[in-house]
Formats: sequence, C-alpha cells, structure tokens
Amino acid sequence: MPSLEAYRRELDYSYAPGIFPSLECMLKRPGLARRLLISEKGKGSEGVAKLTALAEEKGIRVEVADKALARVSGKENCFAAVVFEKRPARLDGSVDHVVLHHIADQGNLGTILRTALGFGWHDVAVIRPAADVYDPKVVRSSMGALFSLRVREYEDFDAYRRDYPQHACYPFMLDGSVGLDEAAASPSRPCALIFGNEGAGLPPEFQQVGQPVRIPSSDEVDSLNLAIAAAIGMYAFRRIK
Amino acid sequence: MPSLEAYRRELDYSYAPGIFPSLECMLKRPGLARRLLISEKGKGSEGVAKLTALAEEKGIRVEVADKALARVSGKENCFAAVVFEKRPARLDGSVDHVVLHHIADQGNLGTILRTALGFGWHDVAVIRPAADVYDPKVVRSSMGALFSLRVREYEDFDAYRRDYPQHACYPFMLDGSVGLDEAAASPSRPCALIFGNEGAGLPPEFQQVGQPVRIPSSDEVDSLNLAIAAAIGMYAFRRIK
Repeated sequence: MPSLEAYRRELDYSYAPGIFPSLECMLKRPGLARRLLISEKGKGSEGVAKLTALAEEKGIRVEVADKALARVSGKENCFAAVVFEKRPARLDGSVDHVVLHHIADQGNLGTILRTALGFGWHDVAVIRPAADVYDPKVVRSSMGALFSLRVREYEDFDAYRRDYPQHACYPFMLDGSVGLDEAAASPSRPCALIFGNEGAGLPPEFQQVGQPVRIPSSDEVDSLNLAIAAAIGMYAFRRIK
Repeated sequence: MPSLEAYRRELDYSYAPGIFPSLECMLKRPGLARRLLISEKGKGSEGVAKLTALAEEKGIRVEVADKALARVSGKENCFAAVVFEKRPARLDGSVDHVVLHHIADQGNLGTILRTALGFGWHDVAVIRPAADVYDPKVVRSSMGALFSLRVREYEDFDAYRRDYPQHACYPFMLDGSVGLDEAAASPSRPCALIFGNEGAGLPPEFQQVGQPVRIPSSDEVDSLNLAIAAAIGMYAFRRIK
C-alpha cells in the first residue's frame, strides 16, 4: 500500500474527514472507499465502531493513523476519515442541474452541496477555476452530501453547455430582468440554475444566457452571501413539496 | 484616552474590522464610533482615505494602530477598524422580528444578520447563551449589517416574550406541523420567526409556542445549515417584493 499524501488536486484520491462524512461515503458509495483511517483515541467511540464494522463487512482496510488524520483534517480531534477514490460523475441529462461558476470558497461549496441534496437537486456542475469539490474541507462542510450527488467539474461554461444544450438556463444576477418568484412559478424543465463567484457574481455575458433571475432584496445590502442566494434559488425552484 | 483591549464580552465597546464594516458604522451609526484605527500600510488605500475623511468630518479621533488591528481582526492585512460603543437597541414592537435561540456559531450569526437586512427584517432578538452579536468576528461576517439593525440580547425566551407578548410566533422545527409555504401564505402580523441552535434545534417545548413550521426538504439530509434555514424562512415570510 502506498503511503498517504497530504491532499492536493492532482491526487486521484481524497479524504472524507469526520465520522459523519465517512459514514456517508461508506453507506452511499462504498465502492469508492479505499481505506478507513481511525485514531487511537477514537477507538472506543460509537461512530468509529460503526465505521469499522462497515469496513470489515465490505472488505475495506482499516488503519490506525493519528498523524494522517490530524494532517488531513487540520484538527486534533478527528476520529476517522475514509480515503476515497475521486471519480467524476456524469450528470443526469433528464433532470434539473445546479451550475456553480467560479465559486471560490470551500465552505460555500460544501454548504451548497448539502443544501442541494436537501432540496432534491442531485446534479451539480462546477465551472473552473473554482474550489475543488474533492478537497477534504469541502467534503466535510458538505457533511458528506458529495456522496449522494452527481458532481462534475468543467473547464468552462461552454463545455457544460455542449453536454447539456437543452437545459433552460436561469443565471442568477443582481440585475436579472425577472424576479425569482415569477421565474420559479412555471419554469421550463429541465432547467439549470447558474450562480456566480462570491465577489464578482456572473460575468455580464450571462445576460444573454437563458432567463436572468434576480432575488428581490433590500437596497440596504449590496448582495447576499452566495450560499444563501443559491439556497433560496434552489428552494424556490425546488421539486420537493 | 485609555488603551484598547482585546475584545471580550464584558467591554462596553467593540471593533468593526475591515473597510466595509467600518464604513457601515461611520455612515449608519456615527454616534457609536469612538475612534478609527488605521494601518500604516493601508494609508494610501481608497477605503482608508474615505474613512479618514468621514472621521474628520464627524470629529472622530484617528489612530495609526497596526498591532491593535492585527489583534482585533486576527489578520495581518486589516487596514481599518472602527472602535464602537455597544448600545443595546429596543426592538420595534410594531414590526416582524427574527429570534435566534441559542445560536452558537459566530459566522452563522453574522450571515443571518446580513441576510435579515437583505430581506427587510430590521429587528433581531438573540436568546442567550449564544454567540456575542458584538464580537468583531460577527460584525465582520455581518458585513456591518449590525449597524442597520435593531439587535437585542435576552437572557431567556420568556424575557423576550414579556416584552413582545403580541407577536405571532413561528418556531422553525424539523417536526413542525405546518409546511413553510402554507405558514407564509397568510401569516399573522406582526410575527416572530424563531430559529434554534445549530446542533440541537429548538427544544421540544417550542411545539407549544405559536405555530411550528417545517421547511420541506429531502430525507437525504438530516437538517439544513442554520444560516440557510433562517434565510429561507426570512425569504418566504419576507416583506420585499
């Protein structure tokens, strides 16, 4: 077995740090799990016991690896992490998508993945340059939602569009010509909700892409937090009643 | 002038770190500003120039204080901070409120304050124990929204309720008996939207407080992030069209 490296984008594996994200990997995508790392002091905990039992059941190697856990999680009290294989998903072309264009913040990306799952959006495209969906910090802040979603990174928006030319696009922009409630009342389907970068938003050319949408809000703030805006968009267009 | 201390809850002043939060304080609540701290290397920047001009106009003392800025912000590149007086607001009894019960995370609290302002909720009660609304990290993550809101901390929910017994309460609970869209369709007004702690949610006794509300979401996640749930509640009950 090769020794484990600190995470970087070039590796073909990553880490799901924490009991909850590790459980999500082992339960939802056990085929991706290569190893289970546990800490010496976490051995007695219920979560680690559950993970260890699952690993044995599925024939996944278990290692006590306190140093690797501290390095991967950046925390002293991380009890477990699954080492998992990075395998890009193919989005389902028949259902709605979320498209994140140049999203930069790892915490925002993780939160948006968790929210997407919460509102039944299972297909997420990330347009680069962007935070790395496989980064352990993203996996952790997604609470392992990554393992229940189909997520794919694209080099640019055109590459996404070539794969899914039929999706009705709804770019979210501060100067979108239609308010959210109106847009979400009877959307064309399947649709793609498109959200831009934390600081810059979407570039102006997205005004020509589909139907730009504005979230009605007060002049007293210049914009909403990206994870908040994406959540509200996904909620309004949601398919769960 | 007394020397400035590292922030702690007992002080009667706090810090708004960063250009944007400092501008919000100077523009919206100049009466609270005691001093403007600027950094040596920030002196040439446009933001610092604007802040300095405002301070001079309003007769507020300006100090070059690199060490204090680094300590207050936890960052090396913080160019400015306003030292401001903590002054509890009185909520407006005639309008809707947001009530945050035992909210623990500073980033969540700041994000919720910013979102509240974005959706026109100007009155926020924080029920202790909770993150400190005046903590510089909260002020920063609120992007200075604190200075446009009326925010008051209460020792417990009963103390809030004694001040505002007429507000129709909508506690947000995973097992709320009414879905959000139904509750928000024709709410009693003025209303109070109540959100619980990040981990534990609201205690079960809130089932007896007003009309418990559930945000419809998938079984695939156990709950939504608190700042996300609060944003969706405030959006759905919003008064901005």
